[in-house]
Amino acid sequence: MSLSPTAQSGRPVVPSRARWQPLGLDQVRITGGFWADLQDRNARTMIDHCERWIETLGWSGNFDAAVDGRLPADRRGREFSDSEIYKLLEAMAWEVGRTGDPELESRLLALTARIAAAQEPDGYLNTMFGRPGQGERWSDLEWGHELYCAGHLIQAGVARARTVDDWSADPLVRVVLRVADHVCGVFGPDGDQRVCGHPEIEVALVELFRVTGERRYLDQARQFVDRRGHGVLADIEFGRAYFQDDEPVREATVLRGHAVRALYLASGAADLAVEDDDQELLDAVTRQVRTTLARRTYLTGGMGAHHEGESFGQDWELPPDRSYSETCAGIASVMTNHRLLLQTADPRHADAVERTLFNVLAASPSAEGTAFFYTNPLQQRLPGDVPDPDVASPRASSSLRAPWFHVSCCPTNVTRTVATLSSYLATADDHGIQLHQYAPATIRTGDLHLTVATGYPLDGRIEVSAVSAPDAWSLTLRVPSWAVGAVLTRADGTQLGVDPGYSTVPGPRAGETVTLDLPVDPRFTVADPRVDAVRGQVAVEAGPLVYALESVDLGADVATARVTADSPRRDADGRVLVRARVDQVPARDWPYGATAETTPGEVRDVALVPYQAWGNRGPSTMRVWLPHG
Amino acid sequence: MSLSPTAQSGRPVVPSRARWQPLGLDQVRITGGFWADLQDRNARTMIDHCERWIETLGWSGNFDAAVDGRLPADRRGREFSDSEIYKLLEAMAWEVGRTGDPELESRLLALTARIAAAQEPDGYLNTMFGRPGQGERWSDLEWGHELYCAGHLIQAGVARARTVDDWSADPLVRVVLRVADHVCGVFGPDGDQRVCGHPEIEVALVELFRVTGERRYLDQARQFVDRRGHGVLADIEFGRAYFQDDEPVREATVLRGHAVRALYLASGAADLAVEDDDQELLDAVTRQVRTTLARRTYLTGGMGAHHEGESFGQDWELPPDRSYSETCAGIASVMTNHRLLLQTADPRHADAVERTLFNVLAASPSAEGTAFFYTNPLQQRLPGDVPDPDVASPRASSSLRAPWFHVSCCPTNVTRTVATLSSYLATADDHGIQLHQYAPATIRTGDLHLTVATGYPLDGRIEVSAVSAPDAWSLTLRVPSWAVGAVLTRADGTQLGVDPGYSTVPGPRAGETVTLDLPVDPRFTVADPRVDAVRGQVAVEAGPLVYALESVDLGADVATARVTADSPRRDADGRVLVRARVDQVPARDWPYGATAETTPGEVRDVALVPYQAWGNRGPSTMRVWLPHG
Repeated sequence: MSLSPTAQSGRPVVPSRARWQPLGLDQVRITGGFWADLQDRNARTMIDHCERWIETLGWSGNFDAAVDGRLPADRRGREFSDSEIYKLLEAMAWEVGRTGDPELESRLLALTARIAAAQEPDGYLNTMFGRPGQGERWSDLEWGHELYCAGHLIQAGVARARTVDDWSADPLVRVVLRVADHVCGVFGPDGDQRVCGHPEIEVALVELFRVTGERRYLDQARQFVDRRGHGVLADIEFGRAYFQDDEPVREATVLRGHAVRALYLASGAADLAVEDDDQELLDAVTRQVRTTLARRTYLTGGMGAHHEGESFGQDWELPPDRSYSETCAGIASVMTNHRLLLQTADPRHADAVERTLFNVLAASPSAEGTAFFYTNPLQQRLPGDVPDPDVASPRASSSLRAPWFHVSCCPTNVTRTVATLSSYLATADDHGIQLHQYAPATIRTGDLHLTVATGYPLDGRIEVSAVSAPDAWSLTLRVPSWAVGAVLTRADGTQLGVDPGYSTVPGPRAGETVTLDLPVDPRFTVADPRVDAVRGQVAVEAGPLVYALESVDLGADVATARVTADSPRRDADGRVLVRARVDQVPARDWPYGATAETTPGEVRDVALVPYQAWGNRGPSTMRVWLPHG
Repeated sequence: MSLSPTAQSGRPVVPSRARWQPLGLDQVRITGGFWADLQDRNARTMIDHCERWIETLGWSGNFDAAVDGRLPADRRGREFSDSEIYKLLEAMAWEVGRTGDPELESRLLALTARIAAAQEPDGYLNTMFGRPGQGERWSDLEWGHELYCAGHLIQAGVARARTVDDWSADPLVRVVLRVADHVCGVFGPDGDQRVCGHPEIEVALVELFRVTGERRYLDQARQFVDRRGHGVLADIEFGRAYFQDDEPVREATVLRGHAVRALYLASGAADLAVEDDDQELLDAVTRQVRTTLARRTYLTGGMGAHHEGESFGQDWELPPDRSYSETCAGIASVMTNHRLLLQTADPRHADAVERTLFNVLAASPSAEGTAFFYTNPLQQRLPGDVPDPDVASPRASSSLRAPWFHVSCCPTNVTRTVATLSSYLATADDHGIQLHQYAPATIRTGDLHLTVATGYPLDGRIEVSAVSAPDAWSLTLRVPSWAVGAVLTRADGTQLGVDPGYSTVPGPRAGETVTLDLPVDPRFTVADPRVDAVRGQVAVEAGPLVYALESVDLGADVATARVTADSPRRDADGRVLVRARVDQVPARDWPYGATAETTPGEVRDVALVPYQAWGNRGPSTMRVWLPHG
């Protein structure tokens, strides 16, 4: 029996060996529900929105200016702005692969042509460096983002290669191969022995090796991974941990420094370890990620507790109000945990993917798809202002979603990830199929054709039906860590209680259904007592969704809200309610003393919203963690 | 009767009108105890330490390089390094005024001569700008710190002017007058209409007006204060609030942005308001500072909750582990609150001065005076490493005190402040003397000669005795806000309970004593419930001292320490003890769930240390706020 995919087609990650092999975009299709809505929003609005901003601000025009010899005078945007065009190209490539939209493909090709025209004869391609009046090529590896940009360009090429019939003829892929060869020439064994201040090239080169089979790309990735951590970059005020140059990858015990950098590096190192059969390296990355999940991750799955350096805090340092939880770090965490899931088959990585998709990735775009959160705090102390829809925000944190940012890494990152969401749902091995994430979907691989029907995450019932199936196969279903009391109903109707983790049952035959019932009633969650910042507080979750209290629902600032011990519940409309009151706190000259008297308010029902939906109804204060008792 | 000082001699702040007039360094002398020890450490070690580092790093050599035409090639240090020489000069000037040390004065004059030699013919003086190969003068007001450096130079000149017999002949003062005149020429009513990114020039110009009587300096200060807040500086990633250019001074309701910048501006605006008889401006500053004390100040008096931008957080956003509480911000808070105390006679400003002196200023220097804290966190999660005594720290935060910093504003700021500590003890008005801070001291003004005898802050008894005194005068004593149950014993032996605030009794006559007994038993303190980060935790204070738990005393990491409800107490050695245990927390894959089980440890006595003394016994974890119950 072969249920494993045999081609690279439509798979964002293609390990040559894996406990579980990912399925491609053409094998798993999301057909409805929460994630289909987001994919529709991406197709209808978000990709267009990004393209329009990139054009309006002149960031794509930098390539035209390069061709016309108008650089650096006419250059627009930050030093890494090229990467936004590349991430958008990657999103377009996956989206074309997913939908076959010819109009989108023509836009992709047009953008590709402008980029290709700016490529220099030796393969170098970057609008920020190398021309008279600009910094020399590779003269600022700490901050210049040249290899980072090259990495995102390569990722776009990889996406294209995996979604076209003949990748070797594709114009984007051809640009990418020349860029990659140039990088290998400059940074190879006898070349420049440094690394990029922002990891990204590593993961890109491994995937390009997987596409092409060219060993030199893998070798170059290994060199970049091995060099880092030995102080090859300059010390900076943030310290070398900022770009993970403080400690070799295989010696580190936890992720640290700039969260996106750390997680991109972890993804690349994991991919490298797989292709090089380097179990020690894979174990090192796995250990780092698991410790990070256990000690440095917000309830939402968000990573990065410091605004300073957009970085991880220390263990247990997870203040809700100062949660940075950059959208890109969430995406990078999904990338990393997905890779580790494929290799280790450990459910905690799928749990992390789910939590982060629902509560970080999905939180970023507005309901309309025309504005984004860059940071994702778990507490908003000031209602703030509605950002101007025509002005890019000069800063990352905002009280409400902004249309664009001077540093606008997140929107394009969201678009490329949403286009590939279906790749996280299911995997295959020689015995059968594993379902990790639940959404209405169809799954076709080999002889197998399944449908998944569910109202998840609001409803906990997941029905997996076979339209056609081989005689004997195994269906493995993930029970999330919070789903204590889950029940699995086999195709023969027998029921069994299943613990969190993976449960395997005989796969349904054509016309049969296996049903998983997950308990998604709202529940209180408390934190490890070492998470000092949320002591004496509870959060409300229901299924994989983290909930939040907004002042627009409370009718008052959330600062002094308290919930009672009564369990949260759902009302007839599906809303999650808690019993809560708003305490009055007297004004004082000095906020510390022998006592802290308050006047309790009246207890009443208050509705919460899923965290990912907060901030869609105008300015509001908000909190995930609620004082209780 | 005249108890008010009639000369400027030895007074750091000299308002032309005040409810209470400060006394000079020659009028109030600290004769023993905690603050005398610190002043001795300053005289013996800290000033020398700063001078040596400034020389070693070549920061003072920049002036010689300017004279020799070796700039910018030979320039060392950051763009604001000139200011460190000026703050050191100010410290030297006050210290010479305090002690008359001729050796120190010769060093002061030698340093002055090197600076004077670098002054340009038109009065401009800055080693960072204006030469071929450097930025043009005043070309980077956002970040260049030119006016900031000029302000600190002026403050040094003011210190010198107030501690020499004939200021008009002093070489430092003569340099300063030329600098100030140059600034007025460039930034006057018809000149450059911008302001400096870092306030400091404002407070300096008002004091120079007070020294010289030259109205143009006051007018220039007004222009700088009035211009700010109208977006005259560029928008930056931190936002214009960073340098208080977001909102006019008289319209703002609270301090915000970079804490040192905000507080230097507040000091300057307060001084300006006094000299211009501008009650609206004084009220605005007073309102901002009081709201900041009520909502944006740590228990230690520390200000600045964000590492990002070294800035104030939002109301109630006061995480102990991320407390920035820059030493310089503490000093600036003392400056500002002292000024407002003189004008308003409101005890909360004296309370803030005391709290900040004991728990921020005093915390910065090591027991040896050869290393300093730049930031003052209220929780240290990692024990960290002992900084190399021969290496300047590239960053502000450190787990232990560092000898010097690449940005080394704090050490020199500490030295100038310690040299002037006695100016915060007492003031005078037409009726008598007010005592605000308690230390063994002598006070001489007019016909009055007092001695203060006390073991404060460890002992709460303060005895104020008259050696000689006029026939009738009033003695006003501050009862700190925490001192509920204080008892005042008049010279005639009658006792009265006194509430926090100021209490006035007939001044003792020659040979008589008035005694104040303040309750300094250790006590638990809780925070306003809106300070989410310390919910469910208590701090221990005794008198004005905040206490901390260090792992070296606990024998374990402080992360899972809990205190019982038993009141803290002092042992026979004067140490503060709490009943505490160390809980065991099981390892978990994910730190959130329905419950958070812990295994309670054995309850035992644990010693705390005054916060200002923490970190003097090697690497340690530390916390001020302790989970309880």
